[in-house]
Amino acid sequence: MDKILRVDMNHLQIRWEPVPQEYEQFGGRALIARIMLSEVPPLCEPLGPYNKLIFAPGLLGGTPVSSAGRLSVGGKSPLTGGIKEANAGGNGARDIARLGIKAIIVEGLPADGKMYVLYLANGRAELVPADEWRGWGTYATSAEAQKRWGEHCTVISIGPAGEMRMRGAGIVVTGHEEQISRVAARGGLGALMGSKGLKAVVLDASNAPPLPLADAELFRDAAGRFAKALLENPRTGRTGSMHVYGTSGIFAIVNEIGALPTRNFREGRFEKVQELSGERLRETILQRGGKIGTACMPGCVIACCNAFVDSDGQVIVSTLQYETLGMLGSNLGIGSLDDVARLNRMCNDLGLDSIEMGAALGVAAEAGQAQFGDTESFVALLQEVAAGSPLGRVLGQGAATTGKMFGMLRVPVAKGQAMPAYDPRALKGNGVTYITSPMGADHTAGNAFGIRDKVDPLSATGQCAPSLELQLGAVMLDSTGLCLFARPPVYADPQLMVDLINGRFGWGWTVESLKEFNKAVLRMELEFNRRAGFTDADNRIPEYMLTEPLLPHGTVFDVPTSEIDAIFSGL
Amino acid sequence: MDKILRVDMNHLQIRWEPVPQEYEQFGGRALIARIMLSEVPPLCEPLGPYNKLIFAPGLLGGTPVSSAGRLSVGGKSPLTGGIKEANAGGNGARDIARLGIKAIIVEGLPADGKMYVLYLANGRAELVPADEWRGWGTYATSAEAQKRWGEHCTVISIGPAGEMRMRGAGIVVTGHEEQISRVAARGGLGALMGSKGLKAVVLDASNAPPLPLADAELFRDAAGRFAKALLENPRTGRTGSMHVYGTSGIFAIVNEIGALPTRNFREGRFEKVQELSGERLRETILQRGGKIGTACMPGCVIACCNAFVDSDGQVIVSTLQYETLGMLGSNLGIGSLDDVARLNRMCNDLGLDSIEMGAALGVAAEAGQAQFGDTESFVALLQEVAAGSPLGRVLGQGAATTGKMFGMLRVPVAKGQAMPAYDPRALKGNGVTYITSPMGADHTAGNAFGIRDKVDPLSATGQCAPSLELQLGAVMLDSTGLCLFARPPVYADPQLMVDLINGRFGWGWTVESLKEFNKAVLRMELEFNRRAGFTDADNRIPEYMLTEPLLPHGTVFDVPTSEIDAIFSGL
Repeated sequence: MDKILRVDMNHLQIRWEPVPQEYEQFGGRALIARIMLSEVPPLCEPLGPYNKLIFAPGLLGGTPVSSAGRLSVGGKSPLTGGIKEANAGGNGARDIARLGIKAIIVEGLPADGKMYVLYLANGRAELVPADEWRGWGTYATSAEAQKRWGEHCTVISIGPAGEMRMRGAGIVVTGHEEQISRVAARGGLGALMGSKGLKAVVLDASNAPPLPLADAELFRDAAGRFAKALLENPRTGRTGSMHVYGTSGIFAIVNEIGALPTRNFREGRFEKVQELSGERLRETILQRGGKIGTACMPGCVIACCNAFVDSDGQVIVSTLQYETLGMLGSNLGIGSLDDVARLNRMCNDLGLDSIEMGAALGVAAEAGQAQFGDTESFVALLQEVAAGSPLGRVLGQGAATTGKMFGMLRVPVAKGQAMPAYDPRALKGNGVTYITSPMGADHTAGNAFGIRDKVDPLSATGQCAPSLELQLGAVMLDSTGLCLFARPPVYADPQLMVDLINGRFGWGWTVESLKEFNKAVLRMELEFNRRAGFTDADNRIPEYMLTEPLLPHGTVFDVPTSEIDAIFSGL
Repeated sequence: MDKILRVDMNHLQIRWEPVPQEYEQFGGRALIARIMLSEVPPLCEPLGPYNKLIFAPGLLGGTPVSSAGRLSVGGKSPLTGGIKEANAGGNGARDIARLGIKAIIVEGLPADGKMYVLYLANGRAELVPADEWRGWGTYATSAEAQKRWGEHCTVISIGPAGEMRMRGAGIVVTGHEEQISRVAARGGLGALMGSKGLKAVVLDASNAPPLPLADAELFRDAAGRFAKALLENPRTGRTGSMHVYGTSGIFAIVNEIGALPTRNFREGRFEKVQELSGERLRETILQRGGKIGTACMPGCVIACCNAFVDSDGQVIVSTLQYETLGMLGSNLGIGSLDDVARLNRMCNDLGLDSIEMGAALGVAAEAGQAQFGDTESFVALLQEVAAGSPLGRVLGQGAATTGKMFGMLRVPVAKGQAMPAYDPRALKGNGVTYITSPMGADHTAGNAFGIRDKVDPLSATGQCAPSLELQLGAVMLDSTGLCLFARPPVYADPQLMVDLINGRFGWGWTVESLKEFNKAVLRMELEFNRRAGFTDADNRIPEYMLTEPLLPHGTVFDVPTSEIDAIFSGL
């Protein structure tokens, strides 16, 4: 039977607990919502003793289902002040699940103010003093942990940004092969981990038994159907854009629809779009002997990742992704893959969310602290973050604080969290998701880019119902551990997901009960936020996006407030 | 008939408008509440084009009533995000009222990004370009304005802090004789004025006719009774502590009850209490040939002010007040009047709220950026603010942002605004006011220090009803322009206030209608905040004050949440 692993940082004690019945049929994001609502006072200080840091694999974590290894990390967000779940690929969820752990719940604050590593292996759980690792980047931390505990171990770590409790800090997870920087990036969960004095979690699941299956036949059949559907899908199959180009395959399309954040969301198209396109990325990587079409978790049939290498073939980052190309590229006026990769590597090593930092650096440039298009000026700012200088601490807190500090009005955030790389004035469905999701501005919480052929991205009306559907779909994916990119088969055939869950657990779920589950989880998250003080007033786009037209379409964000405020009325 | 003066900074136009009927029976804070609710979108960006900056004398402003010359300044607070009224002594309200202006409403943002002076004289209103004054301190600004337009002019100005849109910035008003730094300090209204491109308002009321009186006999009789009562009151009369020592007369008493913020609210008593006491202040000033017992506005019979001079008799600050002695003194571990006066002068010149800065510097010291008791280390930090360095910009945003930047948990704020110099764990009635007032933590919004003999400051229960009464009393004072210190006669005999208002305007108010007025104004403010997204969740004390006992009494803030949430239920 799975256990809850409770880690008390105040007394440096670890307890294995049976899973309470009320947590049982939850996983990943859903389990985080359930735990937060039961255990964490919604008004607590995010970096204080009453907040909790939760790691939870999705319901399908640790099984051989393709693309089901997203690791959910959660707590009360230091960035938004609301509930937060951020998830990452890599091997973290697989190993936690295989160690028989339903969730790791980290509590309290270390009385000695020191840093620790939580080491978990089959039957072992230890807090290992690691104060000498303080200040290390995530690359060095992962490497040292794997040197000490074995190459096969998975490392979940924070960098200096998290240690400094910067609200732009994420949590970095190692993955398959060279995919060593999968990031649960958003919402400042790295700062929460830092406040707990936890430098890293090291997982050795090498001796763990395979997970039990309630109905092995049903499960294997469904898993097979799922993998087949992914491979036959024109997007996710072997010839699909996702595998061939990776996430950056959409770069030119987002530019074409005029929604590509450019120079701090000033424009929706970037003149150097070709330099950062998926085609250019693929070509560059292959020419230099890097890798494209690799998986971040073993067994993923989509394999959308890459290893971006320099001209000597040395890996700079793996993976270089769309959101990063948008936020550290066009949003900073930078049209060079090498330059974006360099900034991305710095963010990964410091343990910073590249989306939040791209937005913060864009605001800083508008405030005169750097120059759009001048990579060195942005490198210098990231060096300030690394040094923990006052300016660096401002930037490390993200776009909202950076804007506040310099008295700026053009700050692209919702609920205090930076927008990802789709301008909501040209993809209004995403704007609706940004402002209404309990997670703050988040492209994985319900991304309308994929439905742009069905719902006019520029229409002021009719955006809310589709956004809600997408948000509920995201709940399902984030709760089962499924990657967002693996959604087509389960969206097309919801029974597939039900079969996977029933095959694994034997709970007798139905398509209808799964739908109700998704709704219940979203309601729980909204309820946590309500108790934390959120109201409709928090569901608003930045003022300037209501009045400043975005080129090339010249549109503003004009979704009626009445529709926005009614989005959850039928939930 | 009074007019509304509307100043459109976007088009650099000024309009005289008749007073709308719905604004007529409002003044000062009440008028600000009325205008905000009618004209300002509660969700607007505080520093953006839709917020408005309002100057409004109280209903009795410009009349010869003693102590009735407080100038209310308001808008949506850049610091709290809610409605804000802060008021200052000096000659501002008198002159605006005598110029026949019920309120100055400053709108829009300057299209050219430049700075202006609003010059007002009898029948004249001009926006004068003053971009060359940028960066000037408030002392130089006031002096230059009086040199240019006459010594008799009143100057309302911001310093570099307001120009830099720092949320700790206030608005400085010149007053009677050497009282040239009366500050509408709180809530970051200086940043709002800075965002409007308004460096100063200069008032020449020398040729203005006296204000009309609806019932001169009633008015003069009431004004006489009021002045007499003040002079006969043991606190405010000629031998009273307020006149003899000024506001700092309470310093030793607050220390005695254990509520004196000491070293970032770590303790409630300060070992160097004698060094900062009212007695020491008086003795020092008189020895050096400074002044004590002076008035900030002509005709005030209390005359609680001083001119603190150095050993050569040169004025350092006028006035050196209790809150400043607490927040820039004991709260920073500084036990020297000269040192506090030096920090105070820097704050005044930069145009910073000394309460907000005292709290911010205390948090910064706890974060290791300065050393408690080491004045030079705090001077250095204020120099950073002056320079607009990144660290300075952090500090200038106030205590909440400073705490956030350094990941601190011990940050004494409510609704984002720093607490003044009464620790709420030892004066719990003030804690209730801090967290429930629509103004954020504010000692003038309902100060329970004065009722400590009737309501046990340490009792967990029974604090809310008295706080509400005090809050309603504060509404009355702030709306009529009466100084908080002049409250005893009108609290003892509410008919006195009614007679003053009826004598001036002939509105036929009654004690009952005045009470209803006060309640209506508080409801308006709460309604603005509700629309701005405030909920009960914003009415909370910082988490650490719930658990960290404050010496010497060892008490925490334990007023029951149920009582707090019910405070306005009967309003």
